[in-house]
Amino acid sequence: MPLLQFDVIEGRSAAELKTLLDTAHRVVITAFQVPERDRYQILYENQRNKMIFLDTGLGFSRSDKLIMVRVYTSPRSEEQKRRFMTLLAQELQQHCGIDGTDLMVTFITNQKGDWSFGFGEAQYLTGAL
Amino acid sequence: MPLLQFDVIEGRSAAELKTLLDTAHRVVITAFQVPERDRYQILYENQRNKMIFLDTGLGFSRSDKLIMVRVYTSPRSEEQKRRFMTLLAQELQQHCGIDGTDLMVTFITNQKGDWSFGFGEAQYLTGAL
Amino acid sequence: MPLLQFDVIEGRSAAELKTLLDTAHRVVITAFQVPERDRYQILYENQRNKMIFLDTGLGFSRSDKLIMVRVYTSPRSEEQKRRFMTLLAQELQQHCGIDGTDLMVTFITNQKGDWSFGFGEAQYLTGAL
Repeated sequence: MPLLQFDVIEGRSAAELKTLLDTAHRVVITAFQVPERDRYQILYENQRNKMIFLDTGLGFSRSDKLIMVRVYTSPRSEEQKRRFMTLLAQELQQHCGIDGTDLMVTFITNQKGDWSFGFGEAQYLTGAL
Repeated sequence: MPLLQFDVIEGRSAAELKTLLDTAHRVVITAFQVPERDRYQILYENQRNKMIFLDTGLGFSRSDKLIMVRVYTSPRSEEQKRRFMTLLAQELQQHCGIDGTDLMVTFITNQKGDWSFGFGEAQYLTGAL
Repeated sequence: MPLLQFDVIEGRSAAELKTLLDTAHRVVITAFQVPERDRYQILYENQRNKMIFLDTGLGFSRSDKLIMVRVYTSPRSEEQKRRFMTLLAQELQQHCGIDGTDLMVTFITNQKGDWSFGFGEAQYLTGAL
């Protein structure tokens, strides 16, 4: 945790997808100071006509490299969330050639006790985590 | 923002999907009074056996035109949410032939600062939006 | 309601998927004491390289039977949520051969008024439910 859900448009190679997920995970570790093995990622590839993303009037357009990231997590500080967003934009630009105009992020927050990582145990409540 | 996620059963034409998304977006604009370019939509097509939706005892059944809409948004008033639901049912009936029995909606609410629309910037916090 | 979203890795037969969903629904009924027809399930099959789930250092690994369950629901007590997690692990082991190491669960909570089950009506607000 966090769990990251990525929505992209189809067309990337398996290697490109791997780089994208690896890059995002490094940002998770840095921004949230979580263990290396705290990695939970799902990626959906969508056809072009099934992702319609405009700009709320901000004045830019999106390309087919568009990526929507939903971060499901227990509460994180505003500073941590902003660091995550900023770093993610930087690292995706550098390692995946994804422009800032193609990155959208949102957070969905729940509580630590809402998570079970295995065995039906709420590890944050039992003390295992 | 809001971000709308649609889950439907496979079988609609590209034109039908476009009409569905266009219709839903007009409802977003009217119900939430957002700008025309505040459009963020993802649609997933699912096989019939992968969407099981009953009725909690309300006494109706669902057809293969079933549509589940998840609305990810910063807080909206109860009035706005009810207006959205009501209008969406009306407009989908009129323009897409979707019966009221085939429409299910839920809201997932976060905060304005949880959103980045591009560049890793939290535009509602920086004042860009 | 709740709405359950399942993410699994492709490779199960239609019969296996049906057993999985049927089993999970029995757990919903028992844990949350909801009516039999309060069933809302979506299942996504993903390619192996699009679901990366490690263990936060808990010391186990995941197999290709991995299943991630997201539960979208109005508020449930901590006791109910823990009962759901525990029972789900037991029942999936017994009926689907899914090990505890392959089950991950999280809850996303909203309010009763955030749900419409049909006709654009917020049935928990109007008294229909």
